[in-house]
Amino acid sequence: MAFGWIDEQDRARREAGLVRVLRPRPADSPLLDLASNDYLGLARHPEVTEGAARAARTWGGGSTGSRLVTGTTELHTELERELAGFCGFEAALVFSSGYAANLAAVTALAPHGSLVVSDAGNHASLIDGCRLARGTTQVVAHAEPDAVRKALATHDGPAVAVSDTVFSVDGDAAPLAALAEACREHGAGLVVDDAHGLGVLGEGGRGAPYAAGLAGRDDVVATVTLSKSLGAQGGAVLGPARVIGHLVNAARTFIFDTGLAPAAAGAALAALTLLRREPERAARARAVAAELHARLTASGLAAVRPDAAVVSVRAPSAETAVRWAADCRTAGLSVGCFRPPSVPDGVSRLRLTARADLSGEQIAHAVRVIGETRP
Amino acid sequence: MAFGWIDEQDRARREAGLVRVLRPRPADSPLLDLASNDYLGLARHPEVTEGAARAARTWGGGSTGSRLVTGTTELHTELERELAGFCGFEAALVFSSGYAANLAAVTALAPHGSLVVSDAGNHASLIDGCRLARGTTQVVAHAEPDAVRKALATHDGPAVAVSDTVFSVDGDAAPLAALAEACREHGAGLVVDDAHGLGVLGEGGRGAPYAAGLAGRDDVVATVTLSKSLGAQGGAVLGPARVIGHLVNAARTFIFDTGLAPAAAGAALAALTLLRREPERAARARAVAAELHARLTASGLAAVRPDAAVVSVRAPSAETAVRWAADCRTAGLSVGCFRPPSVPDGVSRLRLTARADLSGEQIAHAVRVIGETRP
Ligand SMILES: Cc1ncc(COP(=O)(O)O)c(C=O)c1O
Ligand SMILES: Cc1ncc(COP(=O)(O)O)c(C=O)c1O
Repeated sequence: MAFGWIDEQDRARREAGLVRVLRPRPADSPLLDLASNDYLGLARHPEVTEGAARAARTWGGGSTGSRLVTGTTELHTELERELAGFCGFEAALVFSSGYAANLAAVTALAPHGSLVVSDAGNHASLIDGCRLARGTTQVVAHAEPDAVRKALATHDGPAVAVSDTVFSVDGDAAPLAALAEACREHGAGLVVDDAHGLGVLGEGGRGAPYAAGLAGRDDVVATVTLSKSLGAQGGAVLGPARVIGHLVNAARTFIFDTGLAPAAAGAALAALTLLRREPERAARARAVAAELHARLTASGLAAVRPDAAVVSVRAPSAETAVRWAADCRTAGLSVGCFRPPSVPDGVSRLRLTARADLSGEQIAHAVRVIGETRP
Repeated sequence: MAFGWIDEQDRARREAGLVRVLRPRPADSPLLDLASNDYLGLARHPEVTEGAARAARTWGGGSTGSRLVTGTTELHTELERELAGFCGFEAALVFSSGYAANLAAVTALAPHGSLVVSDAGNHASLIDGCRLARGTTQVVAHAEPDAVRKALATHDGPAVAVSDTVFSVDGDAAPLAALAEACREHGAGLVVDDAHGLGVLGEGGRGAPYAAGLAGRDDVVATVTLSKSLGAQGGAVLGPARVIGHLVNAARTFIFDTGLAPAAAGAALAALTLLRREPERAARARAVAAELHARLTASGLAAVRPDAAVVSVRAPSAETAVRWAADCRTAGLSVGCFRPPSVPDGVSRLRLTARADLSGEQIAHAVRVIGETRP
């Protein structure tokens, strides 16, 4: 039978304890959320949800076409101007998701004959971008600028190095300044995915490239998502106008995809406005992460020191990680659980996210639950 | 300089007259729209925009995480149940875009050692899915079931044939029943992209697989977008529960992407409710397309007979197509203009879309403008 082969894979997955199931949440979930990427607590902020509602009423439920046909509204243009301005880049281009933005940036900037040097810990969307690109990909050791330098030295012609700014699993930061230096030495471009940096790192949350003094440089491109700190959906590529114009003409996930829904654009714009008005939210998210880490460590848990707002805690195995997360949930706490094949190193962990709007009491409570349920 | 190579490509594009620019539209555009994919005229329908607004208020501006972490709400589950029920499939899985849904379906259903037989006219997202898949892809002639049969005969092991149901450029329909027959003969699965069929084809707009009697079969999978007839954003894969469960565990654009924004899910749900209540909208879209085609042909224009709601008109060259579309725009009419590299056969054309809410007068006016501006 056509799809009969799936049953065998399913069986293997069950035996390994690796079956994933969806757990729909109600609108008024009683769980304390340390699992979402809503770092600034803006997804449910009334200004953000009103931004979404207003945009849907004014512009419609969808953008109705490719950005090149009917899918570009003045709202999209405003969001692009705001994003570029806020993060310190010359221009921006908005996509239907961060995933699509990453596919676009990597494929369009890695033409035939080019080299892509990709960090071993990069996000799935960057990896898929490398797989789709016409250029050749060389994967290098995690967070090692010298490995990037060495790879670039072997190549003649267009080249880019590609890296997350904050790695999504462990929450560690990439050595951006050193990466930029290695790229500059070889005339290569640097493409960084600031999905977990925007809203958290840099002055007022302007992101990791801004913090590293790389924003606006003619050899640096950043991608961001609108779905984490900005509490919406969508993604964007930020960079020199030359690069953005090229993406409009060459990126398949731009040309052949319906434009971002107005509601998502409106929500992200409202979040940016809020962030400009309340720049302390970014620092607060970092402080919550630091406190979470300190308390976890004090409880004897193997937590990785956070560079942004993700705190990762190692678990002995995939099964124990799953049980641990389930026990937390039973105790009223929602935490992320990352395990193979979603972790590059095969190590399962709980993934906790610091939200700017968590109180000291909530942090203490969360750490207590995690400690009491530890395997 | 890092991205200097772009300038040369840009120059070549300019010389060929193939530079694409974004044309942001205002909320109250005075243009008559025959360019969007809003086939049923629902994107601005008050029930749809209210559905979006209400969902944003209730659930937030974004879904805050991967569908496997915090990104699945009861709203997503309701939408999946509704989509599966409406289109006649056992189960459904919602993605952030139709593009992501197609990447997921093709990659997850074409494991190592499998064969993917792909129609030469397939949409970019299916092609990218083939490129990302672990299986081997064989591209076959457009809309030729015998070519599919021949390709499948050469292979042992899992296999799928992949096709648009309605091809996005010319609007012609795939020979679904014959494709399904070819697949069944070889124990292969059939994956069809109903982006331009949902809402237009089949009883009440239940889509091309439903119309062909293929919905709900254990060897048929359909993908749909929420961004065209449903006036929202997002995509879904519809199929046997076994396949949907497999996608939850294996599809990278599901696992590593933030869930669809609540507003988009709410808009799509409202559109489905409307479509169930007013099933005549689908037939009306088809009637508008037929009338458009008849009038264009009567004016001596080379229009392709529409199988759904897309009507394509050949243009002598890319330049004349661009000028033609611009002249239409000057005369108050928005039409699509497809040209290389967005057309598989290199033939440039105007792409007109029939909307269920176009009046006879608007159709006549549009045809008059297109005739008067012809190159
Ligand atoms: C590092 C990173 N990049 C890109 C993405 C994709 O962004 P989006 O979910 O907005 O598509 C994610 C997560 O979803 C991510 O963690
Ligand atoms: C045939 C086809 N499939 C898939 C897509 C992608 O869907 P979406 O735009 O919702 O991502 C499109 C158009 O955008 C399409 O025309």
